[in-house]
Amino acid sequence: MGSFENDKKQTLSKKDKSKKQSFDTRIKKLLEIINKKEDYYTTSSCAGRIMLLTVEKLKPDTKWIFVTHKKLKKKEIEKILHNLPQNKVYFKQESFIIHVACRSLNHAQKFLDAVSGVRRKGILSTRGKIVVEVIGSPHFETIIAKDGKLLVTSSYLNHLINEANSRLSENWKKISWLEKNLGEKI
Amino acid sequence: MGSFENDKKQTLSKKDKSKKQSFDTRIKKLLEIINKKEDYYTTSSCAGRIMLLTVEKLKPDTKWIFVTHKKLKKKEIEKILHNLPQNKVYFKQESFIIHVACRSLNHAQKFLDAVSGVRRKGILSTRGKIVVEVIGSPHFETIIAKDGKLLVTSSYLNHLINEANSRLSENWKKISWLEKNLGEKI
Repeated sequence: MGSFENDKKQTLSKKDKSKKQSFDTRIKKLLEIINKKEDYYTTSSCAGRIMLLTVEKLKPDTKWIFVTHKKLKKKEIEKILHNLPQNKVYFKQESFIIHVACRSLNHAQKFLDAVSGVRRKGILSTRGKIVVEVIGSPHFETIIAKDGKLLVTSSYLNHLINEANSRLSENWKKISWLEKNLGEKI
Repeated sequence: MGSFENDKKQTLSKKDKSKKQSFDTRIKKLLEIINKKEDYYTTSSCAGRIMLLTVEKLKPDTKWIFVTHKKLKKKEIEKILHNLPQNKVYFKQESFIIHVACRSLNHAQKFLDAVSGVRRKGILSTRGKIVVEVIGSPHFETIIAKDGKLLVTSSYLNHLINEANSRLSENWKKISWLEKNLGEKI
């Protein structure tokens, strides 16, 4: 067995663990289509999500305080909004992201061509593992709280949630489009 | 003269036109560092910006109604806020983006390694022109108006502007860091 086959086998056996988690549902079929192909396998993915993030004191990194991979209902975050951390809180929606290991650079280029309809894609590495990254669309992100205080009105929060949910739907449509069209191109 | 040299000469002579525009100022030095190198040249760039966007009726594309490459002062957008279009209006901050043509895939990989500290980067194309894309950090974007009505309070708008200005500053620091460190690595 070649080293690509070995790596693929190892990576996909590890992935079984994460498949049990619900967040994979919306992108599971697309991953299966890619992983059935001889020359490709997925190394990581997210189907898209809506999050609340905060900034840790003395750390530059952000920290999740809420995350959903489904449409957000306001009541899901109400507890958090009534008990805010002392730092900035961000409301963020991200589209799907997949990382795909490719057998060769030619296969990586073929994959890029196949996802030409998707906004952001590129080869992350050409040495060792050749990995293509595909991202649906730009993030939607804004600040909603600071110093333990909410900066937005309840009505504006509804608009934010509607906008994020609508972008999540568009994102799922793009995943469905790839499910229908990617298989025959790679 | 080889075809890479020819393309470089042609592209950089075209670029002189855009250099006259003020928005290039913050990224001009970095572009010069890259373009002095034998094996690279820049094909497009933006130093980062803050925008107001709207969605055109019957068109999926967004349209700029305001753009600045400097820190935003509220008074600059007050006229627009008092005369809003009938469609959704988005407030958006984007970081710098550069596209760099590379002589070979090895040079592209070298460039990726040299910008490893930057959040998003990848090879967009390996055929014909080999182009690397580098993007500073994720977009900051939210909805601020709909149906001709402002959805945000004046105080929240101040927070949005502060956040966008602060991210623009961080973005400029990243450009300065690249100015100091990229040259010796490519």
